[in-house]
Amino acid sequence: VQYIDELETPTPVVDLDIVEANLRKMQAYVASHGLRFRPHIKTHKVPELALRQVQLGAQGITCQKLGEAEVMADAGISSILLSYPLVGIGKTERLGSLASRIQMTVAVDSPEALETASRSSQISGAEIGVLVEFDSGAGRTGVVTAAEALDLATTVLETRGLRFDGLMTYPLTEQSSRFFGEAASLFARAGIEIPAFSGAGTPEAWSSHLTPGLTEVRHGSYIYHDRTSVGAGAATLAECALHMLATVVSRPTPERFILDCGSKSLSSDRVPEPFGKGFGLILECPHAVIERLYEEHALATVQPGEAAPRIGERVRVVPNHVCPVSNLHDEVAIARGVRFEGFLRVAARGKTR
Amino acid sequence: VQYIDELETPTPVVDLDIVEANLRKMQAYVASHGLRFRPHIKTHKVPELALRQVQLGAQGITCQKLGEAEVMADAGISSILLSYPLVGIGKTERLGSLASRIQMTVAVDSPEALETASRSSQISGAEIGVLVEFDSGAGRTGVVTAAEALDLATTVLETRGLRFDGLMTYPLTEQSSRFFGEAASLFARAGIEIPAFSGAGTPEAWSSHLTPGLTEVRHGSYIYHDRTSVGAGAATLAECALHMLATVVSRPTPERFILDCGSKSLSSDRVPEPFGKGFGLILECPHAVIERLYEEHALATVQPGEAAPRIGERVRVVPNHVCPVSNLHDEVAIARGVRFEGFLRVAARGKTR
Repeated sequence: VQYIDELETPTPVVDLDIVEANLRKMQAYVASHGLRFRPHIKTHKVPELALRQVQLGAQGITCQKLGEAEVMADAGISSILLSYPLVGIGKTERLGSLASRIQMTVAVDSPEALETASRSSQISGAEIGVLVEFDSGAGRTGVVTAAEALDLATTVLETRGLRFDGLMTYPLTEQSSRFFGEAASLFARAGIEIPAFSGAGTPEAWSSHLTPGLTEVRHGSYIYHDRTSVGAGAATLAECALHMLATVVSRPTPERFILDCGSKSLSSDRVPEPFGKGFGLILECPHAVIERLYEEHALATVQPGEAAPRIGERVRVVPNHVCPVSNLHDEVAIARGVRFEGFLRVAARGKTR
Repeated sequence: VQYIDELETPTPVVDLDIVEANLRKMQAYVASHGLRFRPHIKTHKVPELALRQVQLGAQGITCQKLGEAEVMADAGISSILLSYPLVGIGKTERLGSLASRIQMTVAVDSPEALETASRSSQISGAEIGVLVEFDSGAGRTGVVTAAEALDLATTVLETRGLRFDGLMTYPLTEQSSRFFGEAASLFARAGIEIPAFSGAGTPEAWSSHLTPGLTEVRHGSYIYHDRTSVGAGAATLAECALHMLATVVSRPTPERFILDCGSKSLSSDRVPEPFGKGFGLILECPHAVIERLYEEHALATVQPGEAAPRIGERVRVVPNHVCPVSNLHDEVAIARGVRFEGFLRVAARGKTR
């Protein structure tokens, strides 16, 4: 196989030229604004790409789960931020084991998560950095008041083996700035310095530098981009590095055709209405709407009289959200333009623990 | 580890006692109505469970993709129906290779898919069974008129190496009966016998025998069941064999808690509104609603004053749709009640091709 056109479908195809351009563009942006960069590898889950991110200037990487961090540490990454509360059976030993061989930083938003970090440090004898996570309006994880952040930071400072690294949030919103401002005053009154303020989110990536006090970003999707990036104005379609190569396997009526890439290939993630309709954008037939996804079927429709691909034709689909796509596939095909260059193993796929 | 309670989370846990009861119940049902049974293995994707289905009386299994069939053939399954149109590069050789070692039947809904079967038979020298798929109202794959079905069947009968096995559809609806009735008359006038009529769909499984002319079913979800089964009245919660064991990792406010099982563990599949709200049912806190799923976060809310689990507590989540859950995990923990009995590899996971 020499060309993408000869690959069996469905196959996620990553264009390495576009990846390289995306990596360099974001690295240049963060460097020009003096921001530290710890890209989130959940988007690609490929050690080779994480190493490239570091080689181009990233100060380390961000992972969501210990299993991802273990894969990346094994591959030679030496500094990892785990931006997820670590609570529960088994987490302490695994974090300790990681901290004994590489530089580990963890996010906490509760005394329980802090306790995991503290015990991990005791077990391993290694220092562990701690970022206190606050909620900037997503209503997900993160403390909701600056006073809680101060409490947690104070405990970190009093805990042997832990290092207070600062505050973090996701995504970056107006509320992040408000919260950080409030926290900065409160921490100053308590005589505590906030060494870093870390934010993330590709859709607003190019205005990260406008957040007062921000010192670090953890953007992830920017390496591949997707329909969400494009809808948010953070990328063009030409900057989308991953597409799903698919084949039309059925066309029961002139207005309906079925692609062989269902939710097992694309995930069933949606995009906000203004970003586009359906479960992905078909580059060769952008007027078609992928109305429904079954596990192995993408059901697309066109309006009466509109053109649609025939059975056996191949198309490329830009996913709504690219991160879960990486998680669904053991490997991605790599390409430069139409040339096929092999497969990359998605080694950190499926690491939910 | 001896007990489920000692497992790290998130982990899908399958209760083998419930599985066994579900398998026996459906097998008894189909036997009592004289229906042939080719259970769809997309629900579990575990060869050991497919072998058990056959051991209990199934005449073979159903797979959706060649990659699944290859795994199951390697494990010793000797008769497989591929209920998916095979079109595109590489499919011919792989189907031929399977047909040369086990009994293969394929579904077709177009001349192109029929051509794949025909060429596969030529390559392998093996006979391949063909079911013509018709659309019973889902508006997915399948021919939409009885005349098209007759055309395809006629071509099958004229093609050396192919055997016309009958008609199939999914799901079973009133329209299936109407379509089959029409087709039966048309085929009879053409002097063509329809050897089998195959239908599927766990939600309506227990009324399968009411479909006139039906000779075979391909139900899948019945082995595990899920919130869709329960919502449709096809199972009780106690018959749900797979749950996601999860830990509360954050509780930013009294009304909001976060579980460590996001869409990477549960998939983002939904259920119809009358079946329940949110992305899964938390057995220990059924009044909570999993409002949003991120890749690693399940965000659940309760009403002010309602009880909610604390950070570190473990809960069990019944998935909305269990089939994509199997596809997300390399292995499932197996249990009998609270006892942990090991892991089963989900060997046919991720086989999108």
